[in-house]
Amino acid sequence: MTPRAAFAELLRRHAEVRDLSSATALLAWDQETMMPRKAAAARASQLATLAGLRHERFTDPRLGDWIAACEAASGEFDDEERAGIRELARDWRRATQLPRDLVEEQAAAESAALEAWREARARSDWPAFAPHLERLLDLARRRAAVLGFADRPYDGLLDDYERGATEAGLAQLFDQLVPRLAPMVAIIVEHAGRVDSRCFRQPFDERAQEAFATRVVAAMGFDTDAGRIDRSSHPFCTGIARGDVRLTRRFAADDLRPALFGIVHEAGHGLYEQGLHAAGAAERPGAALLAEACSLGVHESQSRLWENIVARSLPFWQAFAPVAAEYFPAQLAAVGAEECWRAVNEVQRSLIRVEADELTYNLHVAVRFDVERALVAGRLAVADVPAAWNAAMQRLIGLAPGNDGEGCLQDIHWAMGGLGYFPTYTLGNLYAAQLWETAQRELPRLDEAIAQGELVVLRDWLRASVHCHGRRFTASELIERATGAPPSSEPFVRHLRARFGAVYGVTLPG
Amino acid sequence: MTPRAAFAELLRRHAEVRDLSSATALLAWDQETMMPRKAAAARASQLATLAGLRHERFTDPRLGDWIAACEAASGEFDDEERAGIRELARDWRRATQLPRDLVEEQAAAESAALEAWREARARSDWPAFAPHLERLLDLARRRAAVLGFADRPYDGLLDDYERGATEAGLAQLFDQLVPRLAPMVAIIVEHAGRVDSRCFRQPFDERAQEAFATRVVAAMGFDTDAGRIDRSSHPFCTGIARGDVRLTRRFAADDLRPALFGIVHEAGHGLYEQGLHAAGAAERPGAALLAEACSLGVHESQSRLWENIVARSLPFWQAFAPVAAEYFPAQLAAVGAEECWRAVNEVQRSLIRVEADELTYNLHVAVRFDVERALVAGRLAVADVPAAWNAAMQRLIGLAPGNDGEGCLQDIHWAMGGLGYFPTYTLGNLYAAQLWETAQRELPRLDEAIAQGELVVLRDWLRASVHCHGRRFTASELIERATGAPPSSEPFVRHLRARFGAVYGVTLPG
Repeated sequence: MTPRAAFAELLRRHAEVRDLSSATALLAWDQETMMPRKAAAARASQLATLAGLRHERFTDPRLGDWIAACEAASGEFDDEERAGIRELARDWRRATQLPRDLVEEQAAAESAALEAWREARARSDWPAFAPHLERLLDLARRRAAVLGFADRPYDGLLDDYERGATEAGLAQLFDQLVPRLAPMVAIIVEHAGRVDSRCFRQPFDERAQEAFATRVVAAMGFDTDAGRIDRSSHPFCTGIARGDVRLTRRFAADDLRPALFGIVHEAGHGLYEQGLHAAGAAERPGAALLAEACSLGVHESQSRLWENIVARSLPFWQAFAPVAAEYFPAQLAAVGAEECWRAVNEVQRSLIRVEADELTYNLHVAVRFDVERALVAGRLAVADVPAAWNAAMQRLIGLAPGNDGEGCLQDIHWAMGGLGYFPTYTLGNLYAAQLWETAQRELPRLDEAIAQGELVVLRDWLRASVHCHGRRFTASELIERATGAPPSSEPFVRHLRARFGAVYGVTLPG
Repeated sequence: MTPRAAFAELLRRHAEVRDLSSATALLAWDQETMMPRKAAAARASQLATLAGLRHERFTDPRLGDWIAACEAASGEFDDEERAGIRELARDWRRATQLPRDLVEEQAAAESAALEAWREARARSDWPAFAPHLERLLDLARRRAAVLGFADRPYDGLLDDYERGATEAGLAQLFDQLVPRLAPMVAIIVEHAGRVDSRCFRQPFDERAQEAFATRVVAAMGFDTDAGRIDRSSHPFCTGIARGDVRLTRRFAADDLRPALFGIVHEAGHGLYEQGLHAAGAAERPGAALLAEACSLGVHESQSRLWENIVARSLPFWQAFAPVAAEYFPAQLAAVGAEECWRAVNEVQRSLIRVEADELTYNLHVAVRFDVERALVAGRLAVADVPAAWNAAMQRLIGLAPGNDGEGCLQDIHWAMGGLGYFPTYTLGNLYAAQLWETAQRELPRLDEAIAQGELVVLRDWLRASVHCHGRRFTASELIERATGAPPSSEPFVRHLRARFGAVYGVTLPG
């Protein structure tokens, strides 16, 4: 078989596996948005069948032969094709390295842990969840060992989400970042009275909320001919296929912010998914293999950039405060852009990560990173997690949870097997600020454009700088190519200092 | 391998193939109701991939070994299991008999024919469609020959839709039915002035239409925890899985009837799909293999029974005319049950099958059956279809189309390869009337219950008599078991005579 023929076989099998993934994504989307209640058991069976088939088709040993044939003749392929072969080979090796019984044991353990976690959280009952976490930790370590990370299990977990990231590298980023956040928070909470968010804490008609948020998403350039927006109990974005990116949202009856920032966040993810196919992935075979997200951190950088850096900026509210006043004249006609802008940048020490503001958010992640590293390394026993958690919360945020339900049981991630997932949230924030600084430099009139409601100019810059590359580069390489510097926490610190200094009228340490 | 072990393998593979079918059904439902426009190409690829995998998994030669092992030890299985093995074996033999290139050629020919048909219908251009029908006929004959129907190709086509039905048997049913319809029609059109449907031909608010129709569907006992209702440009029902049966509908702004009768029709299909799983299909292995529709005719009997026999009856309107008046006081507050009932039973000679009333509907089917049989047998050339069609329309309905777009090009069925499909519509009408006569006999207070809006009593009777058997029996066996007599056109003729005699106040011949 010629290398080109082997490559053609690889592309065919890749397309088949991609189609199975798309079908799986549609089943999962439907489950959260449309599926009738009594279909749950049948849906679980359908998802398991597709997962099994996908695994079987993808781990076919013939793929190894085709990959080897392509790798042995790399001169026959262009750069993009070589990168595509490299990524496919990496996925194939990881999939074939993991023995089926380990994968199945992990799936069963996660399923049991999820159920136990829901109950344990409701009852604030850590001991009920502890044996599940014990088992998941054991499986995670075995998994890391199989994948060649026996000595550095946390790196093995990270590799699932942020290829190339390491525990040591992350620790360095957090060490730079965390000590600079606490002093900022301390100053701001002393001036808490300078921000008044009552204008957004009023009853808002749900249909008007929907219409307003949809208008913002349209201004961002999200293409609803290649996607849609529905409701679900937890907002998410799913890239089902080329031309099919779906967002979901929910509403709060007495606060405009959750619906607005929720959908802007998901639309940030959605623009990335739509942009993955912008570079002709259907036309060039190399591009077809690369049209996937680079990493969770890069994905999150897109959502956080739009949600926080753009939609909580003064120029954004210069454009959209008058629009909001059209939809909600009774509540907002008398409220100006500055007041809106301050109200969406309220800082508070709080217990719950998903409700945290931009300034304190990464402290929540730091708590989890600390606890998680210690767990995976075996320095912390599962039984001691609540104490370690509460101590870290007190130390970093200055608050301790009243119970484990609002403490170490608040997040779903561990229960779903997502050890090593949390740090990607902070990476997303750092990448976002670094990309934003570069965009401002390269597009000198960007703030003016945003103040006119012309958000598409930023989408187009992100498309060209980030989206169109898919997974051709690692996250670190991608950020360096886009911004001229390796990932750093400096731009993010500069951003926080400028923003919250201005919002609260204080001078913050850098 | 023991017979029981072989049976377990069969069940496992059956479940896998069923899950692939469910995923396919969801993708297809989504395509008609939710999918964004630019996802079309990706969706086509997903559907093709799932179809290919399904075929590959189902035609695995090992299934033949497992089937043989079960068939050789049939004493080890109970009646239900034996029936399940028989049905699975039949499907497997048909799937494996058809060579892949024939299946693919057929799929490609249908795809091309569909596109050509849409254009040809719009331009009333039979010669543009003719070569496609020629090709589909050739493929259909080859298909029938492969399946063992070389001498009786029309029976081979019927076998896809109505297992066990034959051209000769159908011809006999039509020969009994058709000569008795024309005299009824002739009498009624002389008294056309006795029915006035203007009360339904007014503007009706769409949300109120939706609410009213949903209330009727709820009264029928359609379980929306195990299904849902959405919109699509052509209404349909799809049984995606156990606990997941979905209906769609559309609305006419100036006529209440299309939305109402459309959704009642689809809900009739939907109750059948929900009832297939009523008999514990998840618990007993034999039942799991049998929980599929018996035939298209039986499926259609359920939709037509609800749409025509129930929802166009006087007792139904005694219950629902007051309900309709609640939703549409301006249009219907002054309209009584009798007037509604007459208005939904208006008879007219017409050109378009899907708009035809209950009395003339089967004459439209008879036209198609005549033309189709002659085509398949080679007695009629494709080029001569328009002339044959128009002559049959004139003879049976007394009208000739002005062009082929409203004549022999009106239906999608031939273009989608559905030769042999049309007669199942008439079988549905006959089965429905026969089941209804039996239900009335066995439930003496059925009319009273319906007049009280208690429709679930009929659903439960149908569930026990028809739905729960799935495909355990042939349609003919099923009808005979449920009604005590083989399928016949007599109950239907009696029904028409009684109904239209009463609506038009005339005595009709029997």
